[in-house]
Amino acid sequence: MKIVVTGAAGFLGSRLAFALLSRGTLADRNGQQRPIRKLVLFDHAAATAIDEPRVESRTGDIADTATLRELIGEDTDAVFHLAAAVSGEAEADFDLGMRVNLDGTRALLEACRRLPQPPRLVFASSVAVFGVPLPPIVTDATTPTPRASYGVQKLMGELLVGDCSRKGFIDGRAVRLPTIVVRPGKPNKAASSFASGIMREPLSGQPGICPVAKQTKVWLLSPARAIDALIHAHELPGESWGLDRALNLPGLCISVEDMVASLQRVAGKTAAGRVAYVPDPVIERIVATWPVNFDTRRALALGFKGDSDFDAILKSYIDDQGIRIT
Amino acid sequence: MKIVVTGAAGFLGSRLAFALLSRGTLADRNGQQRPIRKLVLFDHAAATAIDEPRVESRTGDIADTATLRELIGEDTDAVFHLAAAVSGEAEADFDLGMRVNLDGTRALLEACRRLPQPPRLVFASSVAVFGVPLPPIVTDATTPTPRASYGVQKLMGELLVGDCSRKGFIDGRAVRLPTIVVRPGKPNKAASSFASGIMREPLSGQPGICPVAKQTKVWLLSPARAIDALIHAHELPGESWGLDRALNLPGLCISVEDMVASLQRVAGKTAAGRVAYVPDPVIERIVATWPVNFDTRRALALGFKGDSDFDAILKSYIDDQGIRIT
Repeated sequence: MKIVVTGAAGFLGSRLAFALLSRGTLADRNGQQRPIRKLVLFDHAAATAIDEPRVESRTGDIADTATLRELIGEDTDAVFHLAAAVSGEAEADFDLGMRVNLDGTRALLEACRRLPQPPRLVFASSVAVFGVPLPPIVTDATTPTPRASYGVQKLMGELLVGDCSRKGFIDGRAVRLPTIVVRPGKPNKAASSFASGIMREPLSGQPGICPVAKQTKVWLLSPARAIDALIHAHELPGESWGLDRALNLPGLCISVEDMVASLQRVAGKTAAGRVAYVPDPVIERIVATWPVNFDTRRALALGFKGDSDFDAILKSYIDDQGIRIT
Repeated sequence: MKIVVTGAAGFLGSRLAFALLSRGTLADRNGQQRPIRKLVLFDHAAATAIDEPRVESRTGDIADTATLRELIGEDTDAVFHLAAAVSGEAEADFDLGMRVNLDGTRALLEACRRLPQPPRLVFASSVAVFGVPLPPIVTDATTPTPRASYGVQKLMGELLVGDCSRKGFIDGRAVRLPTIVVRPGKPNKAASSFASGIMREPLSGQPGICPVAKQTKVWLLSPARAIDALIHAHELPGESWGLDRALNLPGLCISVEDMVASLQRVAGKTAAGRVAYVPDPVIERIVATWPVNFDTRRALALGFKGDSDFDAILKSYIDDQGIRIT
C-alpha cells in the first residue's frame, strides 16, 4: 500500500499519519489488508518530521496540477484529502478558499483519475455544508444550504468526489466532520476554533475567550474518533457507500455552558473560572448557521462511532497532553 | 442598460436576444426600467447576425478569464448566462463539461466581481440537478442529488452564484429550467433532445425517434415561457430572492404517449404515426433519474408562469414555424 495524505502538517493530518503507521495495514481495492509500504505526507508547509523509513514528506501547492500529478504516482492505492483553507480563512479571503478548497480538490481528483486503478479517496468534508434554514434534526437527506464560502467549497468538493466516483475515476468517500474538540496547540482561523480554545487555554492556565453566548450549542467529535472515522471511511467497501458518497458523522451535541461545567468537574473550579465570554459578532453569525442536532443513523449503521460524553473527551485530552490537574 | 448574454448563439439565447430587443427596457439595479442601450451576444460560435445598432456580437471561449474580463466591461448592468455544454456532451466528455459549465461560470463570475457595481446575473440552471432517489414531489427544499456530470456542474454553478450573491459580488438568480419543448432546428446532444424531436420531426414529415418508453413522463416548459422566466428572474428585486438564489420553475408534467396523443389531436393521425419507439439505454438511464413531479409554489408566488396544456405548446410551435397542417 502506498498512501498519500494531504494537509498532513495539520492537526488531524499528523494524527492520521501516526495512526496509519501504528496500524501498519490498510485495505486494498479488493478489501484485503495489506502492509503500508509508503506513506507520503503532503502539505504547503513542512510537517513535523517523522523519522520512519515508510514516510516521505513533500511540500507544495495543492492547487498546482503538475505538483499533484507528481505527488499521486501510479502506485498510489489510497488518498486521504485533508488539505483545506479553514472556515475563517475561506470567508476572509474568497480567492484563497476557492484555490485551496476547490482547485486543490479538483487537481487532486484529476491526478487520481490518471492512475491505472481508481484509488480509494477519503475527503474530509464538514457539517459547515449545512446552513439556515435548518430542520430540527439534520439527516443525510437534509439539503445543504451553506451560508459561508467554506461550506460552499466543501460541498462542491463533495459533489466532485461523488461524480468522479460515479464515473469510476476514484472510489471516493466524503465524511462531514463535526467540530473537532479538544485540539491542542494554537487557535486557528476556523470560526469553530473557540470550541477547543475555551478548554485548552484554561487547562494551561490561560484565559479561554468564548466569542459566542454560553447557551450556544455545538456539534463535536473528539480527535481520536475523527481519526477512527477517516480510517473507517477508507476501509468500508465501495458497495456500502453506493451512489451517496457524503456522510454526516456521529457527534455530540453540547452547549458551551455544559462544556464549561464539564471542565469544572474534570479540572476544577479555577480552570473553569478562566473562561470569559467576549462576544464576536462575526464568529457568532457564522456559528449560528451551523447545525447541532443530527440523526446519523446511516453512519452508525455503517459502523462509525461518536463520543459518549464530554467528560471523557476532556479526560482523554488531559491524558494525551500530560496535563497535571492540581 | 448594457446587457451581456452568454450562449447567445443557442436556441434560448437567440430568442432571449430578440425578446430583450423587442421589450426595449430592463430594470436597473434600483428596479427602474431603463432603455437597453447595448446588447452583447457572446458565444463560442458566431450567432445569427442581428442587424441592429444596439447589438454587438462576440465570439470566444467562455472559460478564458481574459476574454471574459474584456467581455464584461465596467458598464455592464445585467448578464444572462446561458452558455453550457448540454447533458449528453457533459456526460460523454467530462473535461468539456467541467470547462464550459464550471470554469465558464466561474470566469464569468470573476469578471462580474471586478465591476464597480454588482450586476444582476441570471443563470440558466436545470432540473437535472435532481436525481434518484427522488421524493414523490420535488420542491425547492428537495436535496439535489445529481446523477450525471451535467447536473453536478449546474449545481456547482448555482452554489457559486449563491455564494457570490451573498458576498455582494453579483446579484444572482438561478432558475432551474424544465426540458424546453418544442425546440426548432436539429437535435442536440442533450439527453432530453428527443422530447422536441418526437414532435418536430413528425411535423416536418420525418420519423420522430423516441428513445424512451411511451409511459415515460417529462417535465416541460415552452420556449416562450422559458424566455419570460429568464427575464422575470432578472426583473425581480434582490430582496424577493433572499439567500436562496436557485429556483425550480413551473412546468408541465406529461407522458410521451400523451404528447403523441396531443400531436394527433393538433396535427392529425399521419403526423402522430411517424413517432417510432427505439429504446436507447444510455438516454433511458439518464432520463430515468430526472424528476417530473414538482411543487413550484415559491416560483408561482414570485410571479413565474408555466404552460397550461400541451396542445397550446404544440399549436404555438406550429404557428411560430409557419407549418401548414394538411
